[in-house]
Amino acid sequence: MEHGKELLEQLSKFVESEDIKSALVSGLGAVKWAEIGFYDQKKKEYINLRLNRNMEVSSLTGNVSLKDGKPFLHLHAVLSDGKGDCYGGHLVRAEVFAFEASLIVLKGEPPERELDDVTGLYLWK
Amino acid sequence: MEHGKELLEQLSKFVESEDIKSALVSGLGAVKWAEIGFYDQKKKEYINLRLNRNMEVSSLTGNVSLKDGKPFLHLHAVLSDGKGDCYGGHLVRAEVFAFEASLIVLKGEPPERELDDVTGLYLWK
Amino acid sequence: MEHGKELLEQLSKFVESEDIKSALVSGLGAVKWAEIGFYDQKKKEYINLRLNRNMEVSSLTGNVSLKDGKPFLHLHAVLSDGKGDCYGGHLVRAEVFAFEASLIVLKGEPPERELDDVTGLYLWK
Repeated sequence: MEHGKELLEQLSKFVESEDIKSALVSGLGAVKWAEIGFYDQKKKEYINLRLNRNMEVSSLTGNVSLKDGKPFLHLHAVLSDGKGDCYGGHLVRAEVFAFEASLIVLKGEPPERELDDVTGLYLWK
Repeated sequence: MEHGKELLEQLSKFVESEDIKSALVSGLGAVKWAEIGFYDQKKKEYINLRLNRNMEVSSLTGNVSLKDGKPFLHLHAVLSDGKGDCYGGHLVRAEVFAFEASLIVLKGEPPERELDDVTGLYLWK
Repeated sequence: MEHGKELLEQLSKFVESEDIKSALVSGLGAVKWAEIGFYDQKKKEYINLRLNRNMEVSSLTGNVSLKDGKPFLHLHAVLSDGKGDCYGGHLVRAEVFAFEASLIVLKGEPPERELDDVTGLYLWK
């Protein structure tokens, strides 16, 4: 991935350009800063937290599936600072310092997301 | 996965119903609460910690192999609260809010667990 | 993996003996102690942190690619202590208590690392 650019944007562009509709994502690297989200299960809304510091991406787990007929990237991450302390959650955005992402592309019918009334999230049918 | 049900139970049932004996597991989502375990390497016993709060599952890593001839699920997780703070360890149980699990099913002879005297754990032969 | 031996050394030997040049790595287990690294993005050097305590490996993510023509292992980990607290970063070394690693070996041209002037890291071309 390119240094100094946004992580999800880069990965989404790759997924679109390669026409990937279903995949498993993993990765590791470092970011200049990141924004992570925590889903408030009662209020049914994301609370975003901006982490304005250089961090290692100690874990990145995610998938690609369809939302409104288009490839959609869903990523969770664990980020670690210079003391090893960890911050985790839904990855909203992050600026790449250096990053190695791997996609396992899946064949067959891609899973599709639709709004789930109980959780307020777009989940797989 | 179904909202409001226990995570490991659901995944175990799926693994049994699909007759999966060997697999890699990864996943992401959110739980209403979780119980994680830390193995006391001297006392050779698990110390369990109940986390009574809504959390993101920032990372889930695990496998399926055989124990006593039956498919056995071994999962570790990193869970994150509303401040992004992380809690990790052996995943004992958790109530699903929303969860996306992926299994890479492996062919060939499945690994088998047996009691290891040195660690007190059921490890692969 | 063997109890009481260093994790990266064991995994590197396996990778060499099996002639693996490109792979995805994941794993879980427990270590007696670990040393993790945080890359100082300004000074362009790793700051290592020794964690002298028994910990669960709640997440291990990494890859195998070529560096100077030889298989090279790059691992990031999230480690958790008896209170569930997490420490993460680049995995420098760790003594195995018990560990289950999985490698997905990739075919095709293996990615090669070369020194990147902007970051000071050996990145994929």
